[in-house]
Amino acid sequence: MTTRDDCLALDRADELAHFKQEFALPAGIVYLDGNSLGARPKAALQRARQVVEQEWGEDLIRSWNKAGWFELPGRLGDKLAPLIGAQPGEVVVTDTTSVNLFKALAAALRMQAENPATAQRRVIVSERSNFPTDVYIAQGLAQWLDSGYTLRLVDAPEELPQAIDASVAAVMLTHVNYRSGRLLDMPGLTAHAHAQGALIVWDLAHSAGALPVELEQANADFAVGCTYKYLNGGPGAPAFIWVPKRHQARFGHPLSGWWGHANPFAMSSEFAPHPGIARALCGTQPITSLAMVEVGLDMYARTDMAALRRKSLVMTDLFIGLVEERCAGQPLTLDTPREHGLRGSHVSFTHPQGYAVMQALIGRGVIGDYREPGIMRFGFTPLYLSYADVWDAVDTLADILQRQAYDAGATRSAVT
Amino acid sequence: MTTRDDCLALDRADELAHFKQEFALPAGIVYLDGNSLGARPKAALQRARQVVEQEWGEDLIRSWNKAGWFELPGRLGDKLAPLIGAQPGEVVVTDTTSVNLFKALAAALRMQAENPATAQRRVIVSERSNFPTDVYIAQGLAQWLDSGYTLRLVDAPEELPQAIDASVAAVMLTHVNYRSGRLLDMPGLTAHAHAQGALIVWDLAHSAGALPVELEQANADFAVGCTYKYLNGGPGAPAFIWVPKRHQARFGHPLSGWWGHANPFAMSSEFAPHPGIARALCGTQPITSLAMVEVGLDMYARTDMAALRRKSLVMTDLFIGLVEERCAGQPLTLDTPREHGLRGSHVSFTHPQGYAVMQALIGRGVIGDYREPGIMRFGFTPLYLSYADVWDAVDTLADILQRQAYDAGATRSAVT
Repeated sequence: MTTRDDCLALDRADELAHFKQEFALPAGIVYLDGNSLGARPKAALQRARQVVEQEWGEDLIRSWNKAGWFELPGRLGDKLAPLIGAQPGEVVVTDTTSVNLFKALAAALRMQAENPATAQRRVIVSERSNFPTDVYIAQGLAQWLDSGYTLRLVDAPEELPQAIDASVAAVMLTHVNYRSGRLLDMPGLTAHAHAQGALIVWDLAHSAGALPVELEQANADFAVGCTYKYLNGGPGAPAFIWVPKRHQARFGHPLSGWWGHANPFAMSSEFAPHPGIARALCGTQPITSLAMVEVGLDMYARTDMAALRRKSLVMTDLFIGLVEERCAGQPLTLDTPREHGLRGSHVSFTHPQGYAVMQALIGRGVIGDYREPGIMRFGFTPLYLSYADVWDAVDTLADILQRQAYDAGATRSAVT
Repeated sequence: MTTRDDCLALDRADELAHFKQEFALPAGIVYLDGNSLGARPKAALQRARQVVEQEWGEDLIRSWNKAGWFELPGRLGDKLAPLIGAQPGEVVVTDTTSVNLFKALAAALRMQAENPATAQRRVIVSERSNFPTDVYIAQGLAQWLDSGYTLRLVDAPEELPQAIDASVAAVMLTHVNYRSGRLLDMPGLTAHAHAQGALIVWDLAHSAGALPVELEQANADFAVGCTYKYLNGGPGAPAFIWVPKRHQARFGHPLSGWWGHANPFAMSSEFAPHPGIARALCGTQPITSLAMVEVGLDMYARTDMAALRRKSLVMTDLFIGLVEERCAGQPLTLDTPREHGLRGSHVSFTHPQGYAVMQALIGRGVIGDYREPGIMRFGFTPLYLSYADVWDAVDTLADILQRQAYDAGATRSAVT
């Protein structure tokens, strides 16, 4: 049996433990939902204050230059790049994941349509269990292009190699599944897609900041992701898009707004795309939300991602092991792979009363979240969670389940 | 001759003067760029602090429900609606003006394509002098739809009636021109477009909060606009989109992200649009920037828009008159119509050394902005400007021009 003292011993040896003090975590809470909304770095408040009070209030319009507002998407992109295995000048932080996915997928389809070898391809491959917005965006794009694109959704990752055949124009996959926490084989699937002549777009929503990502090494084509989960950018903080240098000259998308122009202040009436990554921009960005993203990225600049991954895997192993020890006999099903190579940084268990149990957990200060059907998700963010937190969370879960201390009739309202 | 004392007398009689104390304006500055970035309401800092410290930091993921984050786009939309002559349930605050324009224009083209009477139409009409992003978005959309859409750009508003003929699918116009400040005839042009079987999209970037707008009364089809200018929402604050109830059931656009779904938390793999205005949403919104928009809207809820318009016109008349008195003989050309019915709430003068003169003005605390070619823009925001401010601005301009106290060789860097 693992004891709480064992966990405390792990905490004493934890090389990342010092980061916890940089976060403003409420007292009495074990926060296991950093995979949905990352906790607040203490410095974010000061940064917001600086933007609102000084940059907006005092410097007003001059801040576009003086405070570098106009350069923020690229400056933050350069800071984010090393976390996803990308180069400077290949990433911008901007818009939403949905909008960026639209740009990337549109660009991929256009590149294929302009290549005589692939011009006839009309299939987009994804997973049915992908995060809904990814699937909806692909549906929206396919429906609006008048050339008969269809979406081929597989029911399990094992079907992907067969589904990605020589009829496929583009593959769009989420690296870590939002429900199961399963990690896909980015290098393998990318190589397979390329062997079939397809381009591949990766959604890193649940992997950027959660584990080392190596886009360039995998030779991926495009990627998008969000900054408000593991990267602790703040609620709904702008997302990112990665376009490697080798694709930038051919990267075109229909959201050709003025921030993507080669010379936005010339105010020309003809759109001409910026030669570099700025062509992935569209309109004016929400500066206060955007500026806070930098605080989380600056913390990651001091983080050893290999150490973060080690801690993440020890934590998720610990959580799975403790739940299975302490909640034995309860109708819990592990949705997350046990194999490290297939695991992101969250763990999901299905329970017939998953919604009610999660509400009871939250009521007792253990905050995870719930996803249909019956799935309780627990996110493990190595920067601000301790091993004792993991022990305490399972202790609470075991108590709730053993005493059936949840409202079995609870019905679900809107929860994210 | 109008004297500064005359202006002070106007200030004493100004029924809107009390609003100025609600803004955090830096000392020694006359801020005539609220048409580009509105000044900061004092309460915005407290609102940002509440979102960052309490809602994000303390309540974490629970704020999606507890703080109503998920409902913010619609709640703010309902507060914005009366300012543009719209109904509750017809406006959401979300994304950027560029992205919203893409949605509205795409929806308009699709509606026309699905109507047998207009299905063959392939022309979009706009003005060459429209704000560049509007034109670029139309270019991007036209290029990506494979059905041969073309953009017909007129060189002067007088050409619009002729250009809007029975070949036109959609008209996309900005109500107040960003350079000249010229106000278009919304009811007349809307009626003309409809008589020709075209749909019309209005960009209210320079009119929402600047003057009374009556979308419903004009029977307009769609509108977009921004909240960071006259509405004082903060730098790059999210934009808005209006879809009247009569068009909502047919309003479809390709950016079908999960926030536009009828039941986003069912996590279905099939997109089904929300029955109401929420179908105009796409992805997760930047909450901190979004929340601050409410502060400006709450101030407008206490503003008599007819009084605001009266003050705006007196101020712009005063400015034009004083410039012509005090700068007589200088090579200044008024770009803004003298007729009230054709004027928004900013005034532009062209000067051969416009850029250098504007830099000199800014150096002396009179902040306007510059637009190519040679255009100095001065925005008049009745909520926080006094008539004495107008006098002081012209006094400074007259002094700079008379003494040629500007660097005639100044070259332009990025300025917004």
